Amino acid sequence: MTVWNVRANLPSEFDVKIVTDLLSVDNRDLCGYGASKRRMVFVDSNVFQFFGARIIKYFKENDIEAKVISIDISEEKKGLESLMFILQAIEDFSLLRRSEPIIAFGGGVLLDIVALAASIYRRGVPYIKVPTTLLAIVDASVGVKTSINHFGRRNRLGTYYGPVAAFLDTEFISTLPPEEVHSAMGEIVKMAVIKNISLFKLLEQHAEVLMSSHFTHFSSSEIIWLSIDDMIKELTPNLWEKNLKRCVDFGHSFSPLLEMNSISDDSVNSLTHGQAVALDVLFSCCLSVHRGLMSTSDLARVVRVCRACKLPVYHPYFSNKLMLWESLLDTTRHRNGNQNLPLPNNIGTYEFLQDVTLADIKHTIEIYEATTGE
Amino acid sequence: MTVWNVRANLPSEFDVKIVTDLLSVDNRDLCGYGASKRRMVFVDSNVFQFFGARIIKYFKENDIEAKVISIDISEEKKGLESLMFILQAIEDFSLLRRSEPIIAFGGGVLLDIVALAASIYRRGVPYIKVPTTLLAIVDASVGVKTSINHFGRRNRLGTYYGPVAAFLDTEFISTLPPEEVHSAMGEIVKMAVIKNISLFKLLEQHAEVLMSSHFTHFSSSEIIWLSIDDMIKELTPNLWEKNLKRCVDFGHSFSPLLEMNSISDDSVNSLTHGQAVALDVLFSCCLSVHRGLMSTSDLARVVRVCRACKLPVYHPYFSNKLMLWESLLDTTRHRNGNQNLPLPNNIGTYEFLQDVTLADIKHTIEIYEATTGE
Repeated sequence: MTVWNVRANLPSEFDVKIVTDLLSVDNRDLCGYGASKRRMVFVDSNVFQFFGARIIKYFKENDIEAKVISIDISEEKKGLESLMFILQAIEDFSLLRRSEPIIAFGGGVLLDIVALAASIYRRGVPYIKVPTTLLAIVDASVGVKTSINHFGRRNRLGTYYGPVAAFLDTEFISTLPPEEVHSAMGEIVKMAVIKNISLFKLLEQHAEVLMSSHFTHFSSSEIIWLSIDDMIKELTPNLWEKNLKRCVDFGHSFSPLLEMNSISDDSVNSLTHGQAVALDVLFSCCLSVHRGLMSTSDLARVVRVCRACKLPVYHPYFSNKLMLWESLLDTTRHRNGNQNLPLPNNIGTYEFLQDVTLADIKHTIEIYEATTGE
Repeated sequence: MTVWNVRANLPSEFDVKIVTDLLSVDNRDLCGYGASKRRMVFVDSNVFQFFGARIIKYFKENDIEAKVISIDISEEKKGLESLMFILQAIEDFSLLRRSEPIIAFGGGVLLDIVALAASIYRRGVPYIKVPTTLLAIVDASVGVKTSINHFGRRNRLGTYYGPVAAFLDTEFISTLPPEEVHSAMGEIVKMAVIKNISLFKLLEQHAEVLMSSHFTHFSSSEIIWLSIDDMIKELTPNLWEKNLKRCVDFGHSFSPLLEMNSISDDSVNSLTHGQAVALDVLFSCCLSVHRGLMSTSDLARVVRVCRACKLPVYHPYFSNKLMLWESLLDTTRHRNGNQNLPLPNNIGTYEFLQDVTLADIKHTIEIYEATTGE
């Protein structure tokens, strides 16, 4: 009998950079990370409408032969068909394997799907993320997760595959519909409630004016900085999720299935990702109150912040015991048989629960309905 | 401006184990690497025919609830449809994310495709390789490459994603058709010619009786051991192919496109992977002679060994200048714009060429046709 033990380390490294004037011709950020003078560029069609001309001009004036493709994408279209469309475009471009990083301008959906394409084309080619929504700036820009929806489940297929760089320019926020800005607050509120009381206090103080100013109020940079910095601190030691106890999964325990279902169910409001996360945050805080971990006054503060951020505080699915339970069971499978449910015990600190029962869900729904007044 | 530099290391580790009696009930190798008592098992339908009953019995008597799926697979079927079929089976099984390693029994095609499924399902679940062909034992069992064919190109989509273990049992070879054993010699000859003169001498001495004994001659274990040991030595420091100058790519420079084309072209013999590799090895040796790196007597030794291994020494595609050139161009793109062409200068040592021209191909074809007598 012979045994070889094969061991190796894959070093991974990328920059996350907050920039201004990313598309001004003398900002060379988007020209880097590859010696070739060709680039494949995917742009969300909404972004293309406002920034397409500048993107084309940027590459042209920097002497880069860019193939810019505008893609009409959405959560519903985040599937195999869109993935294959992107891969076909890359194949048609005859992309070099290491020196022509693919560039993606868009929200989380486009970034996730282009990242998956980059990760499986020729077993991985480099790519650059340019998040254009507030949600993607504080969330998708930072991690290494790639995905598409499949089998009716969010992000069922995907890989861990980091970009070579992510460039964050808040100018893109200016053209977003207000609802998208509100929705993005879901991930920011999540981070504040689970691990950052300073961020939470900033939100208590400024959320209302932040929303009315379309996220241009002076507090916005500090809020973005704190959100991203927290995210990076959490992700870096656990980039490939070897550890399935992750506080950043807060807000993502009950919501995944509910978010997916809401999209195809005409009888309820469709939930955006940020809205679904915010509702899960609130519901989880109610669970925390039910289990005696959080005070009702802290719960009331969370509700107030959600309202100030123009996030929904009620959705009928969060009164649906069986759907919540099914979602938790699927999440548990995703966490390899453990609930690993991150719950705040006070605002800004947390612990993990492993023993939530259907009866807990039932009682939590009562608190939830009483709290949100439905 | 703020920049975060995210850095992390992904440690990877797996065992490659030569075993006997893998399917005997008291060999617990296949029960390990996961605490759950359920397993999803994919078996090549040819293997299932001979070993299906024993595989089912093995898990049953080890109290493991195994879902065993027999799959009719081939190079032509190594595509998106088969991948999605496998993913659907995994989804239907409600596979746990970390403690239920998928087990694949089969040749390189099945191992590659199940490995790709494992790598993208929920962003990666563990899997175990059981190579059942001689080719897979000395080749696919060792690496971390996963893939399907797409866009008419071999292995165009895939990832780098290692198994938790590979178990190598030569018993499976006994039921292979002789042609498959002959074909597998392609990868062994490749390794011998490019970096192991001892292995080459063993082949010179024993290839004929090895073939007539269906790879049961006493020299077979040493030949397998040397092939795998060489492969592991080459792969371990470069598991993710950060370095695109790889001597194990010998035999894989001209062959990929030719192998694919031969399958759909009724006017020529279809090439198996091992045959295509062997033909590329021979053609590359001719190129080596043309460039003054290898002696004609060494070339003659390589031809003799190929013949003794019952490998083809001629195929019309290797007289097709433009097809060879197109394949080299695609290989060059795959090596990020560099030819990185590993060529033996003597049997067992090599250098990399970067400057092969269409004229070189033309002259090499002349040597090739003269040498192989076509």
